[in-house]
Amino acid sequence: MAKKIKASKVSKRTRNPIRQIVDNLKVEPNKDKEFISLALGDPTTHGNLKIHQSCVDSVTKHLNSFKANGYGPSVGTLPAREAIAKKYSGGFANYVAKDIVIASGCSDALNLCIGALCDDTQNILIPRPGFSLYETLASSKGIECKFYNLLPDQQWMIDLKDLEAQIDSKTACILINNPSNPCGSVYPKSHLMDLIQIAIKYDLPVIADEIYADMVFEGHEFHALASLTDKVPILSCGGLAKKYLVPGWRVGWICIHDPTDVLSEIRDGIMNLSQLIIGSNSLIQAAVPDILATDESFNKENMKQLQGNAELCIELLQGCPGITVVKPQGAMYLMLKIEIEKFKDITDDVDFVEKLVQEQSVLCLPGQCFQCPEPFVRIVFSPPKEKIHESVSRIKEFCLNHLK
Amino acid sequence: MAKKIKASKVSKRTRNPIRQIVDNLKVEPNKDKEFISLALGDPTTHGNLKIHQSCVDSVTKHLNSFKANGYGPSVGTLPAREAIAKKYSGGFANYVAKDIVIASGCSDALNLCIGALCDDTQNILIPRPGFSLYETLASSKGIECKFYNLLPDQQWMIDLKDLEAQIDSKTACILINNPSNPCGSVYPKSHLMDLIQIAIKYDLPVIADEIYADMVFEGHEFHALASLTDKVPILSCGGLAKKYLVPGWRVGWICIHDPTDVLSEIRDGIMNLSQLIIGSNSLIQAAVPDILATDESFNKENMKQLQGNAELCIELLQGCPGITVVKPQGAMYLMLKIEIEKFKDITDDVDFVEKLVQEQSVLCLPGQCFQCPEPFVRIVFSPPKEKIHESVSRIKEFCLNHLK
Ligand SMILES: Cc1ncc(COP(=O)(O)O)c(C=O)c1O
Ligand SMILES: Cc1ncc(COP(=O)(O)O)c(C=O)c1O
Repeated sequence: MAKKIKASKVSKRTRNPIRQIVDNLKVEPNKDKEFISLALGDPTTHGNLKIHQSCVDSVTKHLNSFKANGYGPSVGTLPAREAIAKKYSGGFANYVAKDIVIASGCSDALNLCIGALCDDTQNILIPRPGFSLYETLASSKGIECKFYNLLPDQQWMIDLKDLEAQIDSKTACILINNPSNPCGSVYPKSHLMDLIQIAIKYDLPVIADEIYADMVFEGHEFHALASLTDKVPILSCGGLAKKYLVPGWRVGWICIHDPTDVLSEIRDGIMNLSQLIIGSNSLIQAAVPDILATDESFNKENMKQLQGNAELCIELLQGCPGITVVKPQGAMYLMLKIEIEKFKDITDDVDFVEKLVQEQSVLCLPGQCFQCPEPFVRIVFSPPKEKIHESVSRIKEFCLNHLK
Repeated sequence: MAKKIKASKVSKRTRNPIRQIVDNLKVEPNKDKEFISLALGDPTTHGNLKIHQSCVDSVTKHLNSFKANGYGPSVGTLPAREAIAKKYSGGFANYVAKDIVIASGCSDALNLCIGALCDDTQNILIPRPGFSLYETLASSKGIECKFYNLLPDQQWMIDLKDLEAQIDSKTACILINNPSNPCGSVYPKSHLMDLIQIAIKYDLPVIADEIYADMVFEGHEFHALASLTDKVPILSCGGLAKKYLVPGWRVGWICIHDPTDVLSEIRDGIMNLSQLIIGSNSLIQAAVPDILATDESFNKENMKQLQGNAELCIELLQGCPGITVVKPQGAMYLMLKIEIEKFKDITDDVDFVEKLVQEQSVLCLPGQCFQCPEPFVRIVFSPPKEKIHESVSRIKEFCLNHLK
């Protein structure tokens, strides 16, 4: 049996653009400097942000009950679905348990939504720059991705004209991400209302990736898209990963907002697809009602820390030639604009990232990982303040060294 | 927006045959009798079988470390992969960490294997009767299912002639399930060797669903297919669900047996596909090395209980007219053959199941749920002995009541 076995077309076209770029990075860190990664969207890495003790206690309780180890329904257990429905209702969004589907992380939630809404003859509108998984999921299914631009000069708001221009007869849905990875932006209500008007005009459902719900800085407010409309069908995707600081626990969900009763086929489709892997971990699902009941002051404290870190980045990079920071409003990311022409020997964002690792042992992701058309670099500002201070100071030093 | 949104073709064709049959059952139990389900393949439901305390302790330890809450690699964490590689090596199977992919349950493991091996222009050979998920996974991907028969008169061994006759130029792989759901059979070594010869002859890889590995009765031995061959590429799928009594924890795996080095594309394909949902729960993965180290005497004790239950079923149904029990050899299932012609008013297996619920408040699954061509009924014998006694006695009473 020397004949190589061929992999399926689907598995070959399932690509994570981040992996392709990161795997090809020449990243041999400078041995004289401690390596610091500002690359991974995982707030738990350093221990400065960790899940609330009450959540640990809840999981412990269910673990010791021996009653949360069995199969649940593939769409999730009833108490967890009820708790999510209650927590995320508000404004026009009025969820009951049957509107909630629990998935293996927000990734799986997005997978179910895209899988139920889009045929391989259709296209989906996704943000640029945007979270790379959208493209991975869509292209795996043979669905065409059409990218709409976000505007760095307008706090990364959606270029609504561009978005509208991309819509055609084959468009199955619009996907938005608010608060945004990689931009750290939080859309004001008026902007979301404008988007809703477009969805109405073209009769399109919206997938709202709201995994960073409530993760906003002071002075900003998070508006769930579904809360703002009694006309547009919306699949809001969320999860425990970020706000509750447990990305590894793989619990996400879909909240199905169906004010005009047009989603019955989609509900069935999501249900069918959920049976492929039979849902999410039973133990964590059992703890979901307690986890969602974590005092909101806990999130506020965490956001204060994140905002402090973001402000430190901005302060340290103030006046750093060749770099512009687009001020973030939430989540845990910010984007640095690289003015290539100001540097003597930097060709693009990937080159910036490679040289930064080699010289300063600081890893960021280039904007290309997020389909960013211009040279940007994404910084994750969830590490502890000292690490932010050290690594961002090195970024500044790096820039000064490479200036023309 | 009154226009209904259409669901994708893929989501519509993703069907779980069990659901369709079970949802259509007219199952109003007899109110005078306590309802007993022998339908669900979940050993944890009644509390008579529960995970070993050492596993609970391990999860507790990792939970309190706050170090197992973050993202891991989508193919699984290294310590867990190493532990699985070590545990499941043996004979010709010599795994190292890179041969192991951790998935969200054995279901997801099967999903990844089928997804990487088969194109939608190809077919896959699956057992009849067999676990319904195989068909759900394949048909979701547009892959044709070809069913090969298992032989009830020969302890549900594979009808190898039938299997061989189904192979054609479009066959991507053979899937076998040993020990078997729904049959409770355990294949002897010689039978597996015969299967291996067919795989060699047609140059076909095999997916071995071995989720019931080691769950065998006294006098029977489980042979991992991969342990028996240095020629055939095998993807062995397993998991914690059954042997370790935590189906809800959603940790499964693929062991890639590639003795002739033909699976490099498939490894990449599986890796690509694993990125769609970013793998399995981090907390449980952290505990996998400890869980796999559970003393094997624990499994032996559990199997003693299961074997006792199976023997009780057989004893109680001995001489029950209209019914033949195919003696199980492991797992937690047995199949009753229904001799329709001996009953005055039973038309098929579904009818048997419906009337049994209505009159005796005992639920089993009809063989049709497993594509069984003849009238069989599957019994799950993992409930406590008293429940088995009560429910199987009622099945006997039911048969006597309906005899011609
Ligand atoms: C915008 C966005 N959506 C979804 C996800 C995936 O979340 P989960 O870990 O729950 O699958 C991420 C993770 O980084 C993300 O940034
Ligand atoms: C034969 C077989 N394979 C796979 C599975 C799925 O296992 P998991 O719960 O780990 O997804 C089952 C569950 O009943 C099964 O019976």
